[in-house]
Amino acid sequence: MTNVVVISAGVAKFGNREASYRDLITEAGHACFNATGGAIKPKDIDGFIACSVMPERTAVQSHIASLAEECLGINPSTMSLRLEHMCQSGNAGIRTAYAYIKAGLCKMVMVVGAEKLQVPVPEEIFLNMSTGLDREWEACQGVTAPIMFAMCARTHMRKYGTTREQMAKVAVKNHAHAAKNPYAQFQKGVSLEQVLTAKRITTPFGLYDCSPISDGAAAVIITSAERAKDYTDKPVYIIGTGQSVHGLTFSNHYTDLSHWPPLKQAAESAYKMAQIKPADIDVAEIHDCFTIAEIITTEELGFCAKGEGGPFIEAGQSDYGGQVVVNPRGGLLGCGHPLGATGVAQTAEIFWQLRGEAGERQVNNARIGLTHNNSGPTEHLVNIFSTEVV
Amino acid sequence: MTNVVVISAGVAKFGNREASYRDLITEAGHACFNATGGAIKPKDIDGFIACSVMPERTAVQSHIASLAEECLGINPSTMSLRLEHMCQSGNAGIRTAYAYIKAGLCKMVMVVGAEKLQVPVPEEIFLNMSTGLDREWEACQGVTAPIMFAMCARTHMRKYGTTREQMAKVAVKNHAHAAKNPYAQFQKGVSLEQVLTAKRITTPFGLYDCSPISDGAAAVIITSAERAKDYTDKPVYIIGTGQSVHGLTFSNHYTDLSHWPPLKQAAESAYKMAQIKPADIDVAEIHDCFTIAEIITTEELGFCAKGEGGPFIEAGQSDYGGQVVVNPRGGLLGCGHPLGATGVAQTAEIFWQLRGEAGERQVNNARIGLTHNNSGPTEHLVNIFSTEVV
Repeated sequence: MTNVVVISAGVAKFGNREASYRDLITEAGHACFNATGGAIKPKDIDGFIACSVMPERTAVQSHIASLAEECLGINPSTMSLRLEHMCQSGNAGIRTAYAYIKAGLCKMVMVVGAEKLQVPVPEEIFLNMSTGLDREWEACQGVTAPIMFAMCARTHMRKYGTTREQMAKVAVKNHAHAAKNPYAQFQKGVSLEQVLTAKRITTPFGLYDCSPISDGAAAVIITSAERAKDYTDKPVYIIGTGQSVHGLTFSNHYTDLSHWPPLKQAAESAYKMAQIKPADIDVAEIHDCFTIAEIITTEELGFCAKGEGGPFIEAGQSDYGGQVVVNPRGGLLGCGHPLGATGVAQTAEIFWQLRGEAGERQVNNARIGLTHNNSGPTEHLVNIFSTEVV
Repeated sequence: MTNVVVISAGVAKFGNREASYRDLITEAGHACFNATGGAIKPKDIDGFIACSVMPERTAVQSHIASLAEECLGINPSTMSLRLEHMCQSGNAGIRTAYAYIKAGLCKMVMVVGAEKLQVPVPEEIFLNMSTGLDREWEACQGVTAPIMFAMCARTHMRKYGTTREQMAKVAVKNHAHAAKNPYAQFQKGVSLEQVLTAKRITTPFGLYDCSPISDGAAAVIITSAERAKDYTDKPVYIIGTGQSVHGLTFSNHYTDLSHWPPLKQAAESAYKMAQIKPADIDVAEIHDCFTIAEIITTEELGFCAKGEGGPFIEAGQSDYGGQVVVNPRGGLLGCGHPLGATGVAQTAEIFWQLRGEAGERQVNNARIGLTHNNSGPTEHLVNIFSTEVV
């Protein structure tokens, strides 16, 4: 079967944007087309995937794939979908584009992730964010995302001796990376002291341990390796993908909260498909929705041993010069987290890194990259990219 | 590449249901598992697709794929998606399952369509339904679905002499079919006089020219032809699929409203892939959201010549004993239209028809079947099924 590659990427700045879905989609989509220097035009796109979680709530607008295509002048498409899987929506979109091209149903797919979460009424924002949780059984009891991940953090601290400072260093690293990313929401960096003394959100998290609620969009173009030859001599191959979903309800999580077996399973599937080992990964964009999430994720991805995520960040192993550069884009902590856009923006970053086009953020000799989203501790998706085909 | 087949189906009754998303999903999913006589269990499913348009609005719940998997005991899945493409969501789900199996990323996928549209406050229902339209440019001006299709109807009447009575006969036929379908919302049939004298909705439509706003769910199981051998000697092959989307905004429709070129294109793609002609179709489940939609769809699918849709229904060519039985299930007019569930329920009907299991509704010697959804006049999706592989 054909190999599947990414050939262009574009991002609209993340943040608290005075922009509509149409504005954000147009900004990211045009950036993605423009990055090809005019070589790829809307008429060349036959498949379109919009990754978006809740435009129904924040813009009273469903049917967002067709709206996005119209914004971008893609007319007609012969494949059109809107995908949602809470925080995994973006990487699920990349994976679905892969499936459609592999199946021979599409030739060139644009994947756009877009989310406009900031609305004028704060109470609405909180209500909206809770729609991604189990409303009937958990959110109504106050079991929201910060609470879930705080429970994971406290278990990890108790069991493995992980410290507040180690978690804080995830925020410091990712904000430092974001300071070099013009698309990031936060570009000033934060000190260890700022993180440790910030307003408490829920023990053990302060403000900087939590990713913010953001607006933003990102776009990539995915095609077959054969078709890509007409446009670039540096395609980025999608060489592995894995997903593992163990239900929605957090309280059904069957093991101790410091272990995330679905992530281990998703990663193992992706590594097997890509025929690589964790040590082969040069650069990774992983889902640091909370600082503890990056620590547990580095363990479950096999970058370090189980329980060693704290020392791993502390020793600089996940920063430039370390074993693997984690979140050079700035992560969700530094870039913001416009749900459906996040996974697509991660893919854009890996695309730029593997092509040597990441500017100040460039990871030396980056040849294999990974993206990861969770939709909560029980649900994970991993994609793997390479400069070369398997 | 592997052939892809449907091997089980189940439907939860459509209507104004006192049931939650969880209830509807469980009812349809269990019916689908039970139909295999226990041969297929939740643990055999590795992929899951939830087709649903607006749970965010009607149940303040997103992330519905994981919720549905948890309801049904599917744990873990290694592919999980929620798909939305307004009224095409269900058939887009079938098509995406096809792509994932064809690409080798899944072995056995359950597709569940579910929608709970009836909520206590009527004003909310109208607001919710308008989220499927272009809110900023059209819905706010009153250009809602009945208005769009009424404009199509009036153009078709003027141009081709199509009559009120011909349209009414679509409703009479489909309600008569629904009367034999235990899962249909309406099971009493309607007379031509009832249709013609019903409360006017918008000229030329009366109440029975419009599909209702309904709750419901449906489920099917899709796998490879090889894997299917373990479970059935009557798999139903997916032999063709085509989609064509020409933007969201109705006012950008580029030709006269009685012609729907995107439907013709989607059908031609599907016919080409299936290597069949329109005359080969024995039974079709098409998107009669309004009576005129069935008339125009029979034309664009090539069941009759352009402009002849009125005489085609009048002559009984789309009923039992005619050229092709259209909407034996009762269509959207008779069954109700719980958006994401509709396309999956259409697929369930074609599955039963091609296996000779449709009871009172059985079409003689049905060997090739078609499903069709529109998401408005400018967007169409066609899938084709057969008892035999191409």
